[in-house]
Amino acid sequence: MDISGLKRRGLMYVLSSPSGAGKTTITRALLEKNADKMIISISATTRQQRASEVDGQDYYFSDIPEFNKMVEEGDMLEHAKVFDNYYGTPRAPVEKALSEGKDVIFDIDWQGTQQLREMARDDLVTVFILPPSARELENRLRNRSQNTLETDAQIRGRMSKSNDEMTHYSEYDYVLINQDIDKTITQAQMILDAERLKRRRLIGLSDFVRGVKEGR
Amino acid sequence: MDISGLKRRGLMYVLSSPSGAGKTTITRALLEKNADKMIISISATTRQQRASEVDGQDYYFSDIPEFNKMVEEGDMLEHAKVFDNYYGTPRAPVEKALSEGKDVIFDIDWQGTQQLREMARDDLVTVFILPPSARELENRLRNRSQNTLETDAQIRGRMSKSNDEMTHYSEYDYVLINQDIDKTITQAQMILDAERLKRRRLIGLSDFVRGVKEGR
Repeated sequence: MDISGLKRRGLMYVLSSPSGAGKTTITRALLEKNADKMIISISATTRQQRASEVDGQDYYFSDIPEFNKMVEEGDMLEHAKVFDNYYGTPRAPVEKALSEGKDVIFDIDWQGTQQLREMARDDLVTVFILPPSARELENRLRNRSQNTLETDAQIRGRMSKSNDEMTHYSEYDYVLINQDIDKTITQAQMILDAERLKRRRLIGLSDFVRGVKEGR
Repeated sequence: MDISGLKRRGLMYVLSSPSGAGKTTITRALLEKNADKMIISISATTRQQRASEVDGQDYYFSDIPEFNKMVEEGDMLEHAKVFDNYYGTPRAPVEKALSEGKDVIFDIDWQGTQQLREMARDDLVTVFILPPSARELENRLRNRSQNTLETDAQIRGRMSKSNDEMTHYSEYDYVLINQDIDKTITQAQMILDAERLKRRRLIGLSDFVRGVKEGR
């Protein structure tokens, strides 16, 4: 709520990056900084619910007929099949948040973003995060792999996948080079704050201007 | 100059507002804060040069045939006739600044902005500043008039002109309501900083990404 009854429509904030470029850290930082006015999008999936997972918090768990019905009826903003399981972004919770003036952050890849772009139009703000160098990307992937006992071949496979993902930077509105994580978080927050001031997201401007013209 | 030889193209930053909404103060503040990377656009005019004025600093002074030739050859980004004099924005100094990575700020009205929009396309970022209320707008116009001995009728005329100008807010990318001048300056700076991170303004990204892919 701004002065004079002015509200705004929330925006859909997409962060994509090759694996190892820092996207998850930035997403968490933004959610924390904007706790009262931002939610993270929760995916629907047809895969088996694990014991540790909460429906509606980790995922919306769904069966295949229900999932397909949502896709057919345009109730999924984007969806994909990974091995035998379906994943997708249900439209309703996103639309509810946006109309309440809350932003929705998406941690999705370029393929999901391409679909989202067609569905979301003006609500969408997309940011691509690049690593500062090949060496830094490799370091981050290697550090991460110390926990998971990955082989060199697996890491090279991940590097190669990252390289393919990286070529999609040119489809995004903004590009950040993540050399310093704090600086990158500040930039991601700044883009968010500026985008919130876009005229097309403000609700009640025409009434406000009419009020000023009529001497209020 | 960013890391890895990355440069950016400057942007054209238009601030418009009804008279009395604070545009001039905000423009000055931004020029001061961004002294090394922002210039103000200087207009060309066919009107008589005054003794106090410096050619190329206050205006580019021009005769009518020269001015018309520039318009015909597409060398004016926008132009208008006010009484018997022509005013316009020469393209060359703006293009030079943009290609050097400097931003150019424009203190022009909605009519100039409409023309600029057609010529500048992706380089343009437009911000409209609104007064917080009719009373505040009138106060500012009255305070200003104490120096110039304006009559009530003249002030009412200015209010009426401001009201007409205000209806053009809906053609701008961003809208700021200037209730607190410091906050509005911060917001105008934030929009500028975020817009500088737009992918389409960055130069050398494809080389940078190729470098990372090739292991540099």
